[in-house]
Amino acid sequence: MTLKGNALVGQSGGPTSVINSSLYGVIAEARNHSCIENVYGAIHGIEGVLKREIIDLTRQDEGTIQGLTRTPGAALGGCRYRVQDEDLERIFQVFQEYNIKYFFYIGGNDSMDTAHRISEYAKEIGDGVLRVIGIPKTIDNDLPVTHHCPGFGSCAKYVATSVREAGLHTASMYTSEPITILQTVGRNTGWLPGASALARMDEEDAPHIICFPEVPFELNQFLGKVEDTYRRVGGAFIVVGEGLRKADGSYVSAQADEVGTDAFGHPMLGGASDYLREAIEKNLKIKARNVKLDICQQAAMHFASARDVKDAIAVGRSAVKAAVDGKSGYMVTLLEEEGATSFSELEKVANLEREVPREWIDPSGSYVTTEFLNYARPLIQGEVEVKIRAGLPAYVKLRKIMV
Amino acid sequence: MTLKGNALVGQSGGPTSVINSSLYGVIAEARNHSCIENVYGAIHGIEGVLKREIIDLTRQDEGTIQGLTRTPGAALGGCRYRVQDEDLERIFQVFQEYNIKYFFYIGGNDSMDTAHRISEYAKEIGDGVLRVIGIPKTIDNDLPVTHHCPGFGSCAKYVATSVREAGLHTASMYTSEPITILQTVGRNTGWLPGASALARMDEEDAPHIICFPEVPFELNQFLGKVEDTYRRVGGAFIVVGEGLRKADGSYVSAQADEVGTDAFGHPMLGGASDYLREAIEKNLKIKARNVKLDICQQAAMHFASARDVKDAIAVGRSAVKAAVDGKSGYMVTLLEEEGATSFSELEKVANLEREVPREWIDPSGSYVTTEFLNYARPLIQGEVEVKIRAGLPAYVKLRKIMV
Repeated sequence: MTLKGNALVGQSGGPTSVINSSLYGVIAEARNHSCIENVYGAIHGIEGVLKREIIDLTRQDEGTIQGLTRTPGAALGGCRYRVQDEDLERIFQVFQEYNIKYFFYIGGNDSMDTAHRISEYAKEIGDGVLRVIGIPKTIDNDLPVTHHCPGFGSCAKYVATSVREAGLHTASMYTSEPITILQTVGRNTGWLPGASALARMDEEDAPHIICFPEVPFELNQFLGKVEDTYRRVGGAFIVVGEGLRKADGSYVSAQADEVGTDAFGHPMLGGASDYLREAIEKNLKIKARNVKLDICQQAAMHFASARDVKDAIAVGRSAVKAAVDGKSGYMVTLLEEEGATSFSELEKVANLEREVPREWIDPSGSYVTTEFLNYARPLIQGEVEVKIRAGLPAYVKLRKIMV
Repeated sequence: MTLKGNALVGQSGGPTSVINSSLYGVIAEARNHSCIENVYGAIHGIEGVLKREIIDLTRQDEGTIQGLTRTPGAALGGCRYRVQDEDLERIFQVFQEYNIKYFFYIGGNDSMDTAHRISEYAKEIGDGVLRVIGIPKTIDNDLPVTHHCPGFGSCAKYVATSVREAGLHTASMYTSEPITILQTVGRNTGWLPGASALARMDEEDAPHIICFPEVPFELNQFLGKVEDTYRRVGGAFIVVGEGLRKADGSYVSAQADEVGTDAFGHPMLGGASDYLREAIEKNLKIKARNVKLDICQQAAMHFASARDVKDAIAVGRSAVKAAVDGKSGYMVTLLEEEGATSFSELEKVANLEREVPREWIDPSGSYVTTEFLNYARPLIQGEVEVKIRAGLPAYVKLRKIMV
């Protein structure tokens, strides 16, 4: 049962504020298991494996390793590379060369597909070659099976904070600049725009209208809601998910076509809030501004969720424990309780998306229900103490000690 | 010399994270002077005076008053109303009705023009009618005479933090999404894009290229710099001021014309980063994304500068002391030392803009010098402890107790 060798960990897809906390979890847990001789890190995920860009994580300063739980971005580098069939042989050559017996891949839907294919290939080659465990991360919160995704809580906390702050700002300028549209990330699901509802303190507060990618967008209905809100409170604060679509499935974002698609064929979504702003100004003749926090949402470590950091460390640790115990071909999942984990077969999560349940969106289609709020609220609890140097958060970088 | 009566305070222009700290300074200092009987607040600045929407600030809960120093937006409401000649008589009628002897106006360049006109009108009518003191605020940091403006430090701290975080994020995705353009506010001056340079820890860190409104934009030169950076570090992080202009003075923002102008004839600037993103993608065929933090910059109380809050309280307090001492027609200015204030005649600051000195921008035109960094760094020091409730900052609202 015991498999002696090295562990390799990679980060994949877009980073989250806590993707490095999962990396920390892997490194810290590996120390408890003597069968894992060294922990190596692949630079830019599977791209680094293919290019033999592999660094030694056991020879970093302890302060740097600890600092990973307080540093945004992907310390090893992320990637959006789609593994080709012909890559697999190469990958296993490199694994053999570096005596890799444990492979941990931290990522979202697409990355779990990569992990799954590597795991399947390992099974074909034979037992004892490699154990593969996927570690979830995605601010989109759209992975199936897991109760929630590491990264979502911090992003939701930052989005809700930004909406509360920008909402107060907007309300104080209703007589001259009455409308703000804030665009969240989250691709085809509305977990993040929905979480902005946590910002509301009183009935008249932001957000007033939430546009979910799950609810087909109807321009006239939307404009009617904006006008109603404007008449009722004197302005309107709208939150829109980047992946907002019309009934025919096309993205409202005028830019979607121009911007093109990424390596996995997903559209690069840019302009949902631009579209809504123009629609309001042209049709209602009311001034509107739009906010595109974009990657600042995935990187806002300075106001991350402590709960999220704990969960992210837990999935990293659980992955190592499971692999050492003989598990392979699984992704760690999170349960409702803080830091509690379970597992799902990789094939059950790879390439799949979990939408916000329709019953968690209210009948109007433009706000969440109490169930949604009760689900999201625990995930944004607790503040992370980042180190401050000269007035700014001090973050760490891994040294590129090549193996 | 002693003038007995009520004080009226208004907030004008766009809010900053610390505009309510100045309001707090006025209210707290007024308590020390028995000649000020009540402190009233005008809702939406001078608009509230014209509409007799005036609330009692002496009858608010003490917790709310204290909480003003930790609350973004303009608690009284801001405005962008340009006072007309025919308004002045009406304004003074209202002042007389409410026995207003002290008028404090918290605002930027345009608001100082309003204060100046009211002050001049008071002089015409006669001595002892009204004392007027302007209290500076603007994240743009473009008021002349004052060493810096309350609001700038907090905005700079948030921008630099966002650039450090989004910079780490971008660097970890250089192999797939190599370029980020982050747009700051700040109208025609480059104080905020310049302050983003505080984010850089190492030579290869973000920001790599800063586009200052003070430096005429040349597309080919810009593209050359982007290509150089891309070749040197594998990607590029660009910070652009919203008011970026070409040599002929026109805004690069394609939207500038469509979006129109505000009440003071200033263009509503939206799209400098959209323009740069398109220029890069079309000409260099490299994927780029853009971030528009927009009003989140002016409202990011959750990571405001403690130094800025202290300065903002100080200008509020100094305004009251000066008015009680008989001064009128002045704006409070800040000196280099924390909380130290002086004064400038309102006419010397109204409607004027202070640009970043050319010698504080390096010869390339796309980065700051050490002098700039030494100027800006002290202004972002110290963190403000906001109250947290259920994982989010808890902010206060004034009760609308009409006089």
